[in-house]
Amino acid sequence: MNCAWLEERQLVFRDDLPMPVPENGEALVRVTLSGICNTDIELTRGYYPYAGVPGHEFVGIAKSGPLAGQRVVGEINASCGVCEACTHGRRTHCERRTVLGIKDRNGAFAEYLTLPAENLHIVPEGVPNEVAVFTEPLAAALEIQEQVRIAPDDRVLVVGNGKLGRLIAASLALTGCKLTFVGREHGEIAPRSFDVVVECSGNADGFALARHAVRPRGTIVMKSTYAGDLTFNASALVVDEITLLGSRCGPFAPALRLLADGKIDPRPMIHARYPLHDVSAAFAQAERQGVLKVLLVP
Amino acid sequence: MNCAWLEERQLVFRDDLPMPVPENGEALVRVTLSGICNTDIELTRGYYPYAGVPGHEFVGIAKSGPLAGQRVVGEINASCGVCEACTHGRRTHCERRTVLGIKDRNGAFAEYLTLPAENLHIVPEGVPNEVAVFTEPLAAALEIQEQVRIAPDDRVLVVGNGKLGRLIAASLALTGCKLTFVGREHGEIAPRSFDVVVECSGNADGFALARHAVRPRGTIVMKSTYAGDLTFNASALVVDEITLLGSRCGPFAPALRLLADGKIDPRPMIHARYPLHDVSAAFAQAERQGVLKVLLVP
Repeated sequence: MNCAWLEERQLVFRDDLPMPVPENGEALVRVTLSGICNTDIELTRGYYPYAGVPGHEFVGIAKSGPLAGQRVVGEINASCGVCEACTHGRRTHCERRTVLGIKDRNGAFAEYLTLPAENLHIVPEGVPNEVAVFTEPLAAALEIQEQVRIAPDDRVLVVGNGKLGRLIAASLALTGCKLTFVGREHGEIAPRSFDVVVECSGNADGFALARHAVRPRGTIVMKSTYAGDLTFNASALVVDEITLLGSRCGPFAPALRLLADGKIDPRPMIHARYPLHDVSAAFAQAERQGVLKVLLVP
Repeated sequence: MNCAWLEERQLVFRDDLPMPVPENGEALVRVTLSGICNTDIELTRGYYPYAGVPGHEFVGIAKSGPLAGQRVVGEINASCGVCEACTHGRRTHCERRTVLGIKDRNGAFAEYLTLPAENLHIVPEGVPNEVAVFTEPLAAALEIQEQVRIAPDDRVLVVGNGKLGRLIAASLALTGCKLTFVGREHGEIAPRSFDVVVECSGNADGFALARHAVRPRGTIVMKSTYAGDLTFNASALVVDEITLLGSRCGPFAPALRLLADGKIDPRPMIHARYPLHDVSAAFAQAERQGVLKVLLVP
């Protein structure tokens, strides 16, 4: 089948990959549309070691399993179900997990993929594919509210106006909170003036701004991966009793509800669609400053 | 009056400081006994800029105010009562606060001190002075349970077996949790095997051990101040969805209840008592490896 293939930082189009064969409990999915995420770009820069088909944002048609014939999206962590994390309600943290297009499992930049059938969710009728393909990143945005209570009166700052930052801002705006949303260029931010800061810039400047803006006993949600280590003044964190909270994958069901209800419309973020065989051009486009979502069509 | 005086890292005994005069709402306290804390030692090393009388752990007799004649301990943060932090239930984070013996307010290594009368708590009869003098650090230990729910089934690691670490371990043991308590020398700690780790070693090695030991979605409570910055892998924090939580001053009332009930007896930690005029020798003793609490008698 056709796919994008990543190996030693080289991303190429291939037409010779064997069709994936679903293992026990897995379903085969024909990919209809997929999206390029910053994590995919980071993989091509070698921030994580991964060789295989990248891609983890997709919508497709289940070709086997209990949802065969249905239009589906899929949670990306395939877990063992029996380890300590799995049996304690933390399946996305399974120690033996594979992750679609990220860790030991070929991903969505291909004609077909496999995932555990239990990972798949039916896309409600009326949700177009170009909306459904945002389910995974919107779920990641909603993970914040799984972890932190956002009260309607909270002053919330989102740092980083990329793809994920925009979905985070859109989802947090639905709480009614006092939302401020800034990118690299921004006006003055008063020190210690936000109850919650979501850092999704993925760079040290963004973290420094978050630290500047959060009030004592406030929370900084860290939503991006970083190239390299961060350095911070731990004593000031202790004195101000700040909470730093890492946040990753989130719940699909509410993401699909918000998309189906039209409460969040991600389509203005779509910059371009490329056929899969132009994957290199698609990535080059996705990496440009100011470009938001680039989609791939198998 | 007699006092210890810190200025430009020099700690000296003085007999010429004027008696403090209580301002509006403040009470005068005659200090009966005070304790040397690691923060005091750090002040003498210049980690914070402070000039004045150090000391913030004490028991004494109120000489004025509504509790005049009573034996008291006192909360160390004197807050303005009107700023945003104060009016939102975060008085220990008042932006205009003074802090006994730490920031803009002469402290407890003296014959007398002043504090807002509302900061004082009566010491229950039957609690000896050498027990009551631990109220402030025990309250700081209890702040952990104000911030993090410790479930009876949680696996909890306390890193750092100094004065504060021991009070933390003693207070957490009362929850029934599965407690492990380690100092600088320790056996093997399995990776990702603790739900909550309390870091009170105050050094980078302790933080590295905490990061090693905490499970995905677990919590690291940071209870110590650090000399210099800490560096950490922020991406791993995000992927593992770790919570880092700074923790400082805590509630006095439950600390006094636990001491009065004999649930925690800090007396085995007392290493020595020195008269106030031997404050330099007392600090030299307190800084020695393995020495726990050193008390000062005015």
